[in-house]
Order: sequence, then C-alpha cells, then structure tokens
Amino acid sequence: MALIVHKYGGTSMGSTERIRNVAKRVAKWHRAGHQMVVVPSAMSGETNRLLGLAKELAPSKASLSYERELDMLASTGEQASSALLAIALQAEGLQSVSYAGWQVPIRTNNAYTKARIESIDDARVRADLDAGKVVIVTGFQGMDDEGNITTLGRGGSDTSAVAVAAAMKAQECLIYTDVDGVYTTDPRVVPEARRLKTVSFEEMLEMASLGSKVLQIRSVEFAGKYRVPLRVLSSFTPWDIDIHAEAASGTLITFEEDENMEQAIVSGIAFNRDEAKIALRGVPDKPGIAYQILGAVAQANVDVDMIIQNISKDGKTDFSFTVNRGDYAKTMDLLRASVLPGLGLDDLVGDTKICKVSIVGIGMRSHVGIASKMFRALSEEGINIQMISTSEIKTSVVIDEKYIELAVRALHKAFDLDQPATA
Amino acid sequence: MALIVHKYGGTSMGSTERIRNVAKRVAKWHRAGHQMVVVPSAMSGETNRLLGLAKELAPSKASLSYERELDMLASTGEQASSALLAIALQAEGLQSVSYAGWQVPIRTNNAYTKARIESIDDARVRADLDAGKVVIVTGFQGMDDEGNITTLGRGGSDTSAVAVAAAMKAQECLIYTDVDGVYTTDPRVVPEARRLKTVSFEEMLEMASLGSKVLQIRSVEFAGKYRVPLRVLSSFTPWDIDIHAEAASGTLITFEEDENMEQAIVSGIAFNRDEAKIALRGVPDKPGIAYQILGAVAQANVDVDMIIQNISKDGKTDFSFTVNRGDYAKTMDLLRASVLPGLGLDDLVGDTKICKVSIVGIGMRSHVGIASKMFRALSEEGINIQMISTSEIKTSVVIDEKYIELAVRALHKAFDLDQPATA
Repeated sequence: MALIVHKYGGTSMGSTERIRNVAKRVAKWHRAGHQMVVVPSAMSGETNRLLGLAKELAPSKASLSYERELDMLASTGEQASSALLAIALQAEGLQSVSYAGWQVPIRTNNAYTKARIESIDDARVRADLDAGKVVIVTGFQGMDDEGNITTLGRGGSDTSAVAVAAAMKAQECLIYTDVDGVYTTDPRVVPEARRLKTVSFEEMLEMASLGSKVLQIRSVEFAGKYRVPLRVLSSFTPWDIDIHAEAASGTLITFEEDENMEQAIVSGIAFNRDEAKIALRGVPDKPGIAYQILGAVAQANVDVDMIIQNISKDGKTDFSFTVNRGDYAKTMDLLRASVLPGLGLDDLVGDTKICKVSIVGIGMRSHVGIASKMFRALSEEGINIQMISTSEIKTSVVIDEKYIELAVRALHKAFDLDQPATA
Repeated sequence: MALIVHKYGGTSMGSTERIRNVAKRVAKWHRAGHQMVVVPSAMSGETNRLLGLAKELAPSKASLSYERELDMLASTGEQASSALLAIALQAEGLQSVSYAGWQVPIRTNNAYTKARIESIDDARVRADLDAGKVVIVTGFQGMDDEGNITTLGRGGSDTSAVAVAAAMKAQECLIYTDVDGVYTTDPRVVPEARRLKTVSFEEMLEMASLGSKVLQIRSVEFAGKYRVPLRVLSSFTPWDIDIHAEAASGTLITFEEDENMEQAIVSGIAFNRDEAKIALRGVPDKPGIAYQILGAVAQANVDVDMIIQNISKDGKTDFSFTVNRGDYAKTMDLLRASVLPGLGLDDLVGDTKICKVSIVGIGMRSHVGIASKMFRALSEEGINIQMISTSEIKTSVVIDEKYIELAVRALHKAFDLDQPATA
C-alpha cells in the first residue's frame, strides 16, 4: 500500500461526465490498495469566467487589495470542483472529503495571484487517509499568515499537487492532463515527435522554462527540491484500463540517472514565440553599465530572459536582451525615457518578430560539439542565428520568428529524436 | 456616524452591471458618513447551477459527508459575489475587503445545509471599519468547530446579515430585495395590496412562518432575539436617490409599539399552498395517542404544522394534522406501515388539494371577534373551513386549494387592508 497523489487538470474536470470518470479512475486506484490524495483544477473555463467578471468591474489601477479579492474570487473554482469530485467519489461508494487550501492548511506567503507555498500541515489529511477516506485538496490556493486566501498563479494546481506529495512523502505524484506525456517537441509542429518514457528533472526544468507548457515550472522546481517522483499522463484513457499499464504510462520525471534511462544526448526541442529582442548598440563599456540598463528594467517588474554583451570595440559594446513580448512596448518606452539619456547612446533597436528555439539534454554535459551540430543544422536550412545562450544542459538560439517550424523540424531530425534512444 | 448593515439578494447581484449599482449605492451610504458592512447573496442562478451539478453526481443515499460537500460547493457562490462587490467598491474609489464566513469567523453548529449561527467574532471586521474600509461578509455560510464550511439553508443570507448586525450592534440592517417592502398580502393575488410602512416583529414572524417569502423566518427570529431594527426595501430604485428618502423607504420591522405605528387590528393576509392534510378518524382516545402518531412522524424528520384533535365520542376521536406537501407521500406510507396497525384504526384520509390562509395582526391581542369576522367573510363566499388554528396574533384556516385567491381577496377587503390604517 502506497500513498499516491493524483492531479487532474481543468479539461479532465470539464463536465460532470468527466468528473465521474475521474472518480471511477481514483476509485480503481483506491481499491487497488493505495491511499489516495487528489488535487483537481477548476472546471475548464471557470477561472476565465470568474476573472472575466472581475475585469468588468476592476478599478483602473491594480493594488494589493484588488489582487486579494481576485484570489478570493478565483479560488472558488477549485473549491467547487473539489466538492464535486468528493461527491462523485461518494457516489462510487467511497468515503471522501474535500479541503480548501486554508483547511489543510497550505500556508503561503502573501504575494496574491502568485503566492509561494511555505508549509503544509499534513495531520488532518493523514488522519482521513488512515480512516480509509479519499482526500481531495483544492489546487491553486493556500492561505497567508493573516488568514487571507492566496492563489499560486496559472497552472498552480500542478504545484499544489507536488507540494502535497512532498509534504506527505507520497510514492508518486501523477499529473493527469490532456496530453499523454512529455514529447521530444510539440507534435503539432513535428508529427514524428516521440513521447519520452522518462526525462530527468533538470531537463524537465529547462523545457518548462523554455516554453514547454506541459508542467508549470514551479511545480518542477518543487519536485526537484523535495525529490518527488512525478509522472505526466493522460486522463483520456478509459478509466478502467489495467492499473499497472496506467501506472507505467506517460512520462516519468526522474532524479536518478539509472541504467534503464534513455541515454539520448538531446532529449527535446523547446520553443517559445512569446519573446521580443531589445538591443542597445554602442553602449560605453564601463563597470556598472549592465546594472544601469537592467536595474531600471527590473524595477519596472519586467523579467529579462537572455542577456548578451559582445566584446567591446573602441570602448563601446553592444548590449542585447530579450523580454516577454507583452512587456516589450513598456520596456522600450522606459529605456528611451530614463536610461538612454544617461548613456549618451548611439542606437536602440527592438524586434518582436523573433522566437527562441532550444535543445535540451542532460547528455550535453558529457558530450562536446552538440551546440555546433545545432548551429550547422540551422545553417543548412539558411536560418540566421541572432543570439545564442547556453547552459550546462541546453543551448538556446534566437532566430527570425518565421523560421520557427522549420528550425524545430530540422533540429528534431538532426538529433534523431524520432528514433528511440539507445543505451 | 452609524454602523449600518446592507444585505443584497441574488437578483440585486445578478450581473456585473447590477453589482456596480450596488457598489454605487453602498458608496453613497459610506460617503454620508456611515460605517458599512455589506452581506451579498450569490449571483442569481449560481446556487441552483452549483447544486444542479451536485445532483448530477450525487450518491443514491444522502449522508453527512455528502451534505458537507454540498456546503463546500454552495458556499463558493457567495464568496465569488462578495469578492466581485469588493472589487466594484474599489473601482468606486473606496477601500474594501471581503471575508468568507470562516474568515470572520461566523461560527455555526455542524448541521450542514441548515446550520445555525452560534457566535460571530467582530474584531476583524471592526478593525477594518475603523480603518475606513467597507467590509463585505459572505452571506449564507459559516464554519463549524472543526473548520468545516457550513451553510444556513435557502435564504440564509438574510440571517447572516441580521446576525452580523446583531453582533456589531448595528443601528439598522437594511435588506435590499426585488420587492419594495412587506405588503398586506401578495400583490399578485390582490392588486390593492398595500405596502406596510412598519410591521411589528411578531407579525413579521407569523407572516414568514405562514408563507410570506419576503424574509427567511430565521432571520426574523434572530432580529427578534437581538432586537435588530430591520428594514426591507428595494434595490431597484436608482442608486443615487436621496439617502434620506431611501433610509425611510420600504418596511421597517419594529420592536417598540410606539404612537406612530399603524394601528391596524389585522396587518396582513398570508397564504401557503405547500401543505397537505392528513386525518386519522376513530382514533382511541387514550393518553399518549398524540405521541404515538406524531412521534413516528417526527422521527422520520417530517415537520408537522397544524395539529387538531376533536372532542371524543364513544371513546374515539379524530386526529388531523398538516405536513409539507413534499413530505405527504412519505408520511402516509409511514402511518400505514408502522402506526395504523398498532391503533386498530378505522380510517386514514389524506388531501393534498388544500391551502392555508391566515390573518395576522398584533391588534388581535386586544380585540375580540376578529376570528369570527374572518369566518363570516369566508362563509359569505361559500368557502368551507376544514381546519382552524389560532395563536395570540393570528388565525389560520385550511380550505380547499381552489378557493385560495377568492379567500385572500375577500379577507383583504373585509379587514379594510386596502385603506391606510388610522391611529
């Protein structure tokens, strides 16, 4: 008998029919002898509906008080779906109880709309499990030190599930979603994309941060920090498939590099259309210049992704970085108004028609020449590389947006990702 | 500066447009110098939508666990509308914060779906009021001793508002609804029905228990127990009408019989189509017989309203009572199965085609002949009276359902309710 956490996304909870299927699946796991904790998202569309109502009424200026109310509002979606799932489980003949984040309690800081989990008290949940109940814990939410409801940001239910699994030392946390695992890249772009049976935690972290939408990045960080075995699998298989087949399906995010792991050098191709590039040309090359530019950007709460500074020439250098496309106009305005005048700058250029394509693989640590193989594959397709950024297990390039599918397909082929990896 | 509680029903909160109007109205009161606590219902239709989903998934047998989840589910409607109202108030430039029942906290017993308020801690709300905030408290819900969410039953937001007003010693509790006050009877039945400017707490209590839907009966009981001045008024007047006119509109439920009160002997006519009549004829007239019959009924959780036992003849008597029409079949089955055999009974008859019509008036205490005037008015219309029940301030009769409108109109006229009362 093991303690297992299941997490079901909004699509999986999208109707009473689907909730009934989730209940039957959970019941199967419970009857197989497992202690079950289930973390559901809100029914699909519900969070958007609620936030849409808020938007119609919103004050012109956001504030902490406003964000507090957004969390009061949005958290109701998960509370409702959790209660419905508990009811559906009772209809299956199981004992079941649902808890809102504050009832567990799941304690967070007070950063409304993007709070971070600080602690989880597992006493109440464990007592129920020991009494034979299936326990439903609302995803996406917690409570701050003053008893206010907080939410964890979009996709936060993944993080809730992993955090609960960590706190309860669950044997595995199964993330049921509308795809059947983590792929070498998006199958909508590359039909030959292959599902990975396993992927290392570090690769998953890079993929999540590089644009893969399968898991919220903070849930992967959490899984890494507490070493929670995490599996991504489909909720659209029939609920009554063999439990052993189900338990081995999808993609397992692992921490041990054991011998059974796939030994690909590159595990996947991630890509991201959400960025924009900003370049300051002819910046005086003197100490503190990066801070002078990016300090102002950070103060405006804009996240910077890639940062490139070229070797200087004649005491001047080029300084480029990328930001989320939604922050582009704001950042350009900011630079023009408050940074450029102080720099006596030659030139500011921006480009929103770019994309970032990345290869990710834990094998890159021990293999040389992977990056140059990537550059050659792109060059053979006539794709010009605008920026490059590397880390131990990934290489990212910024290219013209129009080449995105071509680049992803070329790299997928160049690294043989359509073929199962050999040991 | 006074502390005022406003309560808004589901229709008043039915859209973002209407919520904005509620916010403007509350803002007007706040700017006039009042400390404001607002208790909103869920947006109209929302509670039914949620409970409809639960019904689709419900187990075949109700249980405490199931009812607990119903409360988890249904309470989200008020939490969402409260957050939306807080947001709308912020958009009006006010400081505002919303609290779910458990955050106040409003403590109740654990009778899920029909819990009773036991205590309210006003410290948090009072601190916010003193800081100049408008405080929104979710209606309809509270928390039991073990931290489970409870709800107070249909119309429970009225009770929440009165309980909050009592706990905070508010100067007045204003119940905004889709009618503009308490009428001498339902204007849909008698177009000449007249709005009462004041009605005594005791009369309101009788009217609520006799079928008037304007206020939940428990909210009136609560108001009586804690002497909370209560006013029922319309939320569909323009939000910017003069605040003094608004404060004097609707119907005030009073506790003092002061000289300005209307001095009608009969204040209103209530009626109720929801009952059914059950008669056991030829019951042995011996001690314990009423308990033998009604004990079994009470054990099945069926509420009995009127109970009539006639004078006995030849050691036998007739025993009649009324129950809610929804409990009729269950009660008849129960009597046949477990009560009749032990009584050696002659006859059991039931009738669902009945209604109850009542006259209510505090003046009945000091005036004789009111009941006989009622019986004469009905007799003149050829209406046969099947059962009679009286209390200090009301007389109720059971008649054939088909005469309901005729009876109400005849009584309304007989007691001159279409004319303003004279002092």
